[in-house]
Amino acid sequence: MTERRPSAEAGALYYWDYLGLDALLSAQQPRSDLDGEPAHDELLFIVVHQAYELWFKQILHELDEVVAIFSADVVPAKEMGRVVDRLRRVVAIQRLLLEQLTVLETMTPLDFLDFRDALVPASGFQSVQFRLIENRLGLDAARRLQIHGAPYTAVLSAEHAALLADSEAAPSLRTCVDRWLSRTPYLRFGTFDFWSSYAGSVEAMLDGERATVRQLASLTDAGRAEQLEALDRTADEFATLFDAERYEELRSRGQRHLSQDAFLAALLLSLYRDEPLFQLPFRLLTALVEIDEGFTTWRQRHALMVHRMIGGRTGTGGTSGHAYLAAAARRHRVFGDLFDLPTFLLPRSALPALPDAVAHQLRFASEAG
Amino acid sequence: MTERRPSAEAGALYYWDYLGLDALLSAQQPRSDLDGEPAHDELLFIVVHQAYELWFKQILHELDEVVAIFSADVVPAKEMGRVVDRLRRVVAIQRLLLEQLTVLETMTPLDFLDFRDALVPASGFQSVQFRLIENRLGLDAARRLQIHGAPYTAVLSAEHAALLADSEAAPSLRTCVDRWLSRTPYLRFGTFDFWSSYAGSVEAMLDGERATVRQLASLTDAGRAEQLEALDRTADEFATLFDAERYEELRSRGQRHLSQDAFLAALLLSLYRDEPLFQLPFRLLTALVEIDEGFTTWRQRHALMVHRMIGGRTGTGGTSGHAYLAAAARRHRVFGDLFDLPTFLLPRSALPALPDAVAHQLRFASEAG
Amino acid sequence: MTERRPSAEAGALYYWDYLGLDALLSAQQPRSDLDGEPAHDELLFIVVHQAYELWFKQILHELDEVVAIFSADVVPAKEMGRVVDRLRRVVAIQRLLLEQLTVLETMTPLDFLDFRDALVPASGFQSVQFRLIENRLGLDAARRLQIHGAPYTAVLSAEHAALLADSEAAPSLRTCVDRWLSRTPYLRFGTFDFWSSYAGSVEAMLDGERATVRQLASLTDAGRAEQLEALDRTADEFATLFDAERYEELRSRGQRHLSQDAFLAALLLSLYRDEPLFQLPFRLLTALVEIDEGFTTWRQRHALMVHRMIGGRTGTGGTSGHAYLAAAARRHRVFGDLFDLPTFLLPRSALPALPDAVAHQLRFASEAG
Amino acid sequence: MTERRPSAEAGALYYWDYLGLDALLSAQQPRSDLDGEPAHDELLFIVVHQAYELWFKQILHELDEVVAIFSADVVPAKEMGRVVDRLRRVVAIQRLLLEQLTVLETMTPLDFLDFRDALVPASGFQSVQFRLIENRLGLDAARRLQIHGAPYTAVLSAEHAALLADSEAAPSLRTCVDRWLSRTPYLRFGTFDFWSSYAGSVEAMLDGERATVRQLASLTDAGRAEQLEALDRTADEFATLFDAERYEELRSRGQRHLSQDAFLAALLLSLYRDEPLFQLPFRLLTALVEIDEGFTTWRQRHALMVHRMIGGRTGTGGTSGHAYLAAAARRHRVFGDLFDLPTFLLPRSALPALPDAVAHQLRFASEAG
Repeated sequence: MTERRPSAEAGALYYWDYLGLDALLSAQQPRSDLDGEPAHDELLFIVVHQAYELWFKQILHELDEVVAIFSADVVPAKEMGRVVDRLRRVVAIQRLLLEQLTVLETMTPLDFLDFRDALVPASGFQSVQFRLIENRLGLDAARRLQIHGAPYTAVLSAEHAALLADSEAAPSLRTCVDRWLSRTPYLRFGTFDFWSSYAGSVEAMLDGERATVRQLASLTDAGRAEQLEALDRTADEFATLFDAERYEELRSRGQRHLSQDAFLAALLLSLYRDEPLFQLPFRLLTALVEIDEGFTTWRQRHALMVHRMIGGRTGTGGTSGHAYLAAAARRHRVFGDLFDLPTFLLPRSALPALPDAVAHQLRFASEAG
Repeated sequence: MTERRPSAEAGALYYWDYLGLDALLSAQQPRSDLDGEPAHDELLFIVVHQAYELWFKQILHELDEVVAIFSADVVPAKEMGRVVDRLRRVVAIQRLLLEQLTVLETMTPLDFLDFRDALVPASGFQSVQFRLIENRLGLDAARRLQIHGAPYTAVLSAEHAALLADSEAAPSLRTCVDRWLSRTPYLRFGTFDFWSSYAGSVEAMLDGERATVRQLASLTDAGRAEQLEALDRTADEFATLFDAERYEELRSRGQRHLSQDAFLAALLLSLYRDEPLFQLPFRLLTALVEIDEGFTTWRQRHALMVHRMIGGRTGTGGTSGHAYLAAAARRHRVFGDLFDLPTFLLPRSALPALPDAVAHQLRFASEAG
Repeated sequence: MTERRPSAEAGALYYWDYLGLDALLSAQQPRSDLDGEPAHDELLFIVVHQAYELWFKQILHELDEVVAIFSADVVPAKEMGRVVDRLRRVVAIQRLLLEQLTVLETMTPLDFLDFRDALVPASGFQSVQFRLIENRLGLDAARRLQIHGAPYTAVLSAEHAALLADSEAAPSLRTCVDRWLSRTPYLRFGTFDFWSSYAGSVEAMLDGERATVRQLASLTDAGRAEQLEALDRTADEFATLFDAERYEELRSRGQRHLSQDAFLAALLLSLYRDEPLFQLPFRLLTALVEIDEGFTTWRQRHALMVHRMIGGRTGTGGTSGHAYLAAAARRHRVFGDLFDLPTFLLPRSALPALPDAVAHQLRFASEAG
Repeated sequence: MTERRPSAEAGALYYWDYLGLDALLSAQQPRSDLDGEPAHDELLFIVVHQAYELWFKQILHELDEVVAIFSADVVPAKEMGRVVDRLRRVVAIQRLLLEQLTVLETMTPLDFLDFRDALVPASGFQSVQFRLIENRLGLDAARRLQIHGAPYTAVLSAEHAALLADSEAAPSLRTCVDRWLSRTPYLRFGTFDFWSSYAGSVEAMLDGERATVRQLASLTDAGRAEQLEALDRTADEFATLFDAERYEELRSRGQRHLSQDAFLAALLLSLYRDEPLFQLPFRLLTALVEIDEGFTTWRQRHALMVHRMIGGRTGTGGTSGHAYLAAAARRHRVFGDLFDLPTFLLPRSALPALPDAVAHQLRFASEAG
């Protein structure tokens, strides 16, 4: 019999050992004590948070590789598929993160009360890995919400706080992507002045929209005035694209995060995304948008979950609970610039054609002819 | 051959006809014109919105039945299972509504530009059925965000505006559930004064929490002061439960929607939810929480989707786009009271036991002995 | 500073420690070696399997409690809500299990090749906890597929094989539910002969269907004959319900798992599920159906995933890979009886009314009047 | 007031009209009659099937474009991004199709009985659009399961049957992709004999695996023999790749669908997927795998749903219900070849390097240097 049992063999790998299940499955140590037994649902609480931490580790693994690839001076086209795949995997994992909230919500508020006091002052605010993810993505330390008037690391051990300080100083996905975007040679097309051609198309487009609003019988005078003002604001926003000073002003107010060149490059990629060389980079931008959306949604759902679980009470970490989380969902976005990008898109029909010399560079050797 | 063809038979029901597919599948009429062809993605845009409207009709169908059942003077226990099932079906449909956003997001901003102008001024703000759902759930007209300083019906046809005015006046899920909760005979237990027993337990619990905070060495002085203040606020919130005047004041400020009696009944159901008679009613409350959470999440995701699709631009309906939607996600909640409820829960161990006479009434005839 | 750091405090609970993250996050030990580095995707492979094992532990925790409650001689109505909630939580977790496959499928076959050989002979067939779940649910040892002509425990360590032998001998959800169903006092209603009334309705219903088929002009002669034969088979199936000998014969052939009394009780609960006393038990049956469906779907998706990952190759555990998994999806179902149950349902309009004395017993004391 | 109402304006587009909601929302015509009212759940049944048909129309729209692009003699690299996006949208829609089953399953078997008889003989087998999807994907008419010994069109109207006959004759995604793959110029690399280099690597790999199996102490003699035989079968499978006669034999037995050249091209793309020119084509293959997996899963879940809804009874269309659907899930797969492909993959480390002249052709003009 025994010869069929791999684990009994010297050296044969056994599923249980490979996955470290001795350690993994004994790491659930409930703290509550109801007449000698832990509260039934504390295990769920532990398991769901452990599953989060496992997935956070995986997300960091993916982000690390992407940051490493983008930290090089040149990112070869051969790597782009891999980069996009890593980021799309993060998006796939985010679906799990959301679904896990649904599982946690099978616990009722009354069940949570059975062990909630045993957890004070431990709190999800102490998830070091989630903070690492935020830093690796490129969340500006300056944008972070404070907790009780203290920085987010104040609730952490000295060792963990140091880890996070290091990660704040390390290159992030945002800074790497910014540099990569900024150095695209296609931003300035030699003699072809793309951006003034673009600006002309913008002006024509806005004039057309103004004419439409003026004619629209369905609008009240106030509505019409409001929409015309909105178009003026839009025109003004376009103007900021090319005015380095005004762009930096927006940036200093936290309304832009990317550098001006990077923002323009992202716009260019979006407009000419069908060019072979831009197809994967455009998918990269899309993946960044989805990652930002995924974490924002997760924070929003998390805030709702905390609200339904503890009402208006203070969280176990002493924070203001759901209100903090809802605020973080608004403030802790990293790639908000890419959400603003569509403001500046033009319909394909209004796009200037690329000069042949440029178009040629964006094709495959086999097609470039 | 033909005898095998049901449709060729007089009177035999044919799948295509049963589902009205002639009408359904010819109702996609794109408006855009790119060199004689509609923009490829306009069909997706139409189909996803039509699918929304189909599901909205189904949600209204479920809500209508639940409101009808709860409009009776007595809701027999025999109906409770059905009511809960109807509401849980709404929760299941909400997962679809969210997933449909993910499908719509396979359209890129540039693709949307190909037909966006052709839609002005039509807009999702004109979804009559979604407004009906909000009213049927019980969204207070007074809480609604205005659009351009005008009421939400201003963008609708006269006929549709009238429909919505009617629906505002009709009984809603919130008002029906409120009345049903308010008249529970178990709110006042004859000679047993449940609520003063409860209030005593609350006081003891808060005293315990205060003592913990005072001892917690991990807190700064400022943090300690903040948490003690939070506990004082909690104590004060408990006080509002039993003070009709203060409760009404909260209500007039929009911080409570349910009547005081209904709120207390919901609290009672949550605390003693294992009593057989309360098991389905507790599931009803949970379903209401999930419906509220579902629509809130959908509005939040919708706001993000609009942001990534049109950036900071004005929506096709002339509204401020994603900012409006994000604000509506905060304001248009109907069952927020039930999210606040956990503030007032007590651990089971601190709960007063129900007197036998009461407990007996909550059991089955076959068990009541 | 340090006073803000809970972890620095003697005794203050720290999130990291509470969740055992030192152990948890060091349990990922890749085996592959590509030029000194593990293959990038091996971490994903480990994490996804570890997440499975965490959730398997949680599922066992829920099943254990349900089996414990149902092992009592009487299951009080007060417990039924809890039982249903535990099982619905399992259903919620199953959605995660499926979604995790989608995450694993972000790994490509070529990426898997980078570390696949390092895992031989470890294999998912060695997941002890999944086997425990199967046994706890009540999978008959006799129905199990063999692996290489050896029992499923042959690939396990002696300790784990012993654990599974114990679990085969322990009460399962199926056996407990069977006993609970069998002893329902409502199976035999004193003088009211429910089942002969039911049998009469069945006969009338089948006669009606036969008449329809005979008239249906849309059928070919062969189709008509086929459908009439199908109705005869249905009539014959109904007959097996009340014939203890034939019922046992079905059971011995593996076409029924529940005892005859349990099957009839499940049918009764389904037919009169709106009676207050039956509302939660009916939800229990529904949850069992969904759990069975969830694991079947998971096995089917798992088989597809293995197929796309390794093609027709042999699995790391030496088994035939996806073909085994697809076969297990068909054979390892536990509550298939409940899927067959609808065969025997009658439309509500054809249902005999319950005698008053019976109906009274199914109501609440407060309503029983 | 009216000037704010777009719909009241001549010509102003109104959301309701744009979406054809008059037609769409009056297309739900229940057939059942329970005391003058339709059965409550018949609306759900209609709506869910109508939502399916809307999404089927969208899927056909996407497939049509992809087939059109691939029907050209040359597929420019510029189109590949779009093609992949269209197919990934189909994958996103398939998640909806699955989720809609979950919504339909909120209907219980007893509720279905309330209107099931009113639907006979209409049936999902009459979904013309689903059959069109199968044909557009490339399901071989010869592989189709028959219904009652008659072809699948026998249950359709003459007009619909003709439509399907046309679609069988039209180019399908499978046939177009096959031609596109077959004509890749990289299959035969001039003087570089890729395939014999590949065959050498295969032989070395299999020899290594044989050695491992021979040494593995954990195997029984029988297990070892079984695995060695499996490796022999694998070697034999590799042999079929290059032997046109044996490959065609596999094809005539239905074990391969793609032509030999197309299969080899798909293998090449998978092995060298990181080459810039292959990145999107590899994503195309992956999308085809996911579409096949999505429909297979949907059919399997559909079969389970039918089983739990009607048990072993005959479906409304007179077919054998869930058994048919489960069989179709096995037989109606279109891109099974791509699931088998991993059988023939080699680890990257064993891959022959591409000659410079070839590699150059696979790069971008800007990188090709």
